[in-house]
Amino acid sequence: MSINTIFLDLSVYPTDIVEKLTIISTIKEALSNFIPGMKDAHSTNFEDGGFLLVLTASRDSFITVRGFPQGLVSINIEYFQEEGTEQLLTYEAVKQLETVLTNATGSKKSHKFPALQRGSKVDRYFVTSDGRIIEMDIDAVVFNEQSPYQRVQVLHSKTMGNLLVLDELQNLSERDLIYTETLMQRGKEDYSDKEIVILGGGDGALLYELLKEKPKFVTMLELDEVVMRACREHLRSCCGNCLDKLEDINYKIVIGDCVKSLDTMIAEGKTVDYVFGDLTDIPVSTSPQGEVWDFIRLILNKAMQVLKPTGKYMTHGNGTGNQTSLAMYENQLRNLKIPVEFTKDKAFIPSFLEDWVFYQVSPMKLK
Amino acid sequence: MSINTIFLDLSVYPTDIVEKLTIISTIKEALSNFIPGMKDAHSTNFEDGGFLLVLTASRDSFITVRGFPQGLVSINIEYFQEEGTEQLLTYEAVKQLETVLTNATGSKKSHKFPALQRGSKVDRYFVTSDGRIIEMDIDAVVFNEQSPYQRVQVLHSKTMGNLLVLDELQNLSERDLIYTETLMQRGKEDYSDKEIVILGGGDGALLYELLKEKPKFVTMLELDEVVMRACREHLRSCCGNCLDKLEDINYKIVIGDCVKSLDTMIAEGKTVDYVFGDLTDIPVSTSPQGEVWDFIRLILNKAMQVLKPTGKYMTHGNGTGNQTSLAMYENQLRNLKIPVEFTKDKAFIPSFLEDWVFYQVSPMKLK
Repeated sequence: MSINTIFLDLSVYPTDIVEKLTIISTIKEALSNFIPGMKDAHSTNFEDGGFLLVLTASRDSFITVRGFPQGLVSINIEYFQEEGTEQLLTYEAVKQLETVLTNATGSKKSHKFPALQRGSKVDRYFVTSDGRIIEMDIDAVVFNEQSPYQRVQVLHSKTMGNLLVLDELQNLSERDLIYTETLMQRGKEDYSDKEIVILGGGDGALLYELLKEKPKFVTMLELDEVVMRACREHLRSCCGNCLDKLEDINYKIVIGDCVKSLDTMIAEGKTVDYVFGDLTDIPVSTSPQGEVWDFIRLILNKAMQVLKPTGKYMTHGNGTGNQTSLAMYENQLRNLKIPVEFTKDKAFIPSFLEDWVFYQVSPMKLK
Repeated sequence: MSINTIFLDLSVYPTDIVEKLTIISTIKEALSNFIPGMKDAHSTNFEDGGFLLVLTASRDSFITVRGFPQGLVSINIEYFQEEGTEQLLTYEAVKQLETVLTNATGSKKSHKFPALQRGSKVDRYFVTSDGRIIEMDIDAVVFNEQSPYQRVQVLHSKTMGNLLVLDELQNLSERDLIYTETLMQRGKEDYSDKEIVILGGGDGALLYELLKEKPKFVTMLELDEVVMRACREHLRSCCGNCLDKLEDINYKIVIGDCVKSLDTMIAEGKTVDYVFGDLTDIPVSTSPQGEVWDFIRLILNKAMQVLKPTGKYMTHGNGTGNQTSLAMYENQLRNLKIPVEFTKDKAFIPSFLEDWVFYQVSPMKLK
């Protein structure tokens, strides 16, 4: 079951909106040929000359027609659809309705949207880091559990395969190998015989890909056991068998707070060749304040202390659409206790529908 | 300027909907803390136990709250935004509103959508072949002209670069090289010293990539001069300089009806190594009937007649989400005048947000 909401907008002559009666009857007549049982429910005139018309129709559907005096009309059609029942209005019918309305109103420009499905069991809609809507072809909820830290879901998309979703944010799909490869700069960095620490990385994809490069030892510090369980079971094309056990000859997974582990390493004077920051994304916010930013600063400062002078800190940034947020992050990098220099790279991530930025941070070389 | 429409949906107890008064006042109170100047405009009770509440608020905005007796509430907030003015409700505020509503109603599940922008000069919304919505980060209309055949637009997307849009359908962006490479099966087919005909291909991308493979001669048959002009000017990273002139030592572009040119070739007994079908996509329809299918059959039958027995017909199909439409196309292939066999390949096309299918069709070999 879902609530289906259909949109159609028309550009018309502003005078037609202000005079309103003709355009209202034209639109109502066109609509009534596509939607049976239409009845007037309400109308409002706004001070600026615009109007709002509310109609009800069969299947307890409702329609709003809003005229804006700037010469725009928005039409919203909303109805309930039980699983397996017919649509009130197919996308084909909406196309025909658009043509009829364009001819009847003399509209110079119009736009239609496929029905948005709301309130269904499976959420199909995601948001890019710059606030754009993405509708994925999700057809099943494979895993759904509230961990002590977050809502952990694995959804199945026909195009992307299984998709890890944490607190409604798409994290990694089976089609996103490029994410891990750009994060680790595959082909550009040499991991053979190196010591590596991963902060986070619960999906296991980074660990799995790094192990292919024959490192000396990888230590992964992940807090959320539920994420690992979800991925071990349902994202095996990303993490292989490396979440099946917590320890092997070349890696160890420590379940717990990575800050504690970093503190222990610092106290023991232990240093490594690479630290991966695979924790929370840089927040999309307008100022570098708040808990998440404090956490990012804390992690960066501690990570730098366990890096060899020749080491690198590798991490993900944000979408390229978020220049403000990226600039704020780079400002953090410029103000760490240990001075650093950094390079960046980007890649188009299929399930994100955007370019994502990745950072490679090194302790500043003495001149 | 644009009409902004914001959606929020809540799963609640069905009894709360049917009893309605408490839930209505709870939702109204939450909304009024986020949207100033709210006033009741109308309410409807539906026979099935649901309700519709219409409110108006500041900036001549309107809000509908629809309760469905299945335990769902849809909230739509719509307002007009002049260029450069503030949003009535930011996405951050919508997130807060969601939290407030969840706590106040005891909702077990909710979903929010970023504001959809309607009626603006630049259309940001596209549709996948299986009817899903895509919002691209379009920030400019680079080219916009009605040709005798179609609306030809080049839009600029921050992520995809310039994007060719024909009759509102995204065709090729500067990030879609994989489209052309999968169509031509780069690395799998040997074009060196071969004779090739392209039917359509007005964006010039296929011609440009084929010429890199040192063919003997490519003949391109394109009807729409406007598409070529748009791409020559604004899609140069796809077509290079190959649309700058209609003829060179290794290619010729014929502007006109490709059926006529195919007929001439058939009459003259001319055959080639490869024919590319780079015309209209397979329609998304439920039966293989109608003008477009007739055209597809006509083209296929004629193309086969100008192919050498060792030749291949290469073409694009449709999105993998359209199994019905793909099956219908394959049925056409099985019923051509000259019997054929075919293979297929697919690739994820960034600006399509889906996997696209490509066909390689050969005249049946005699056993």
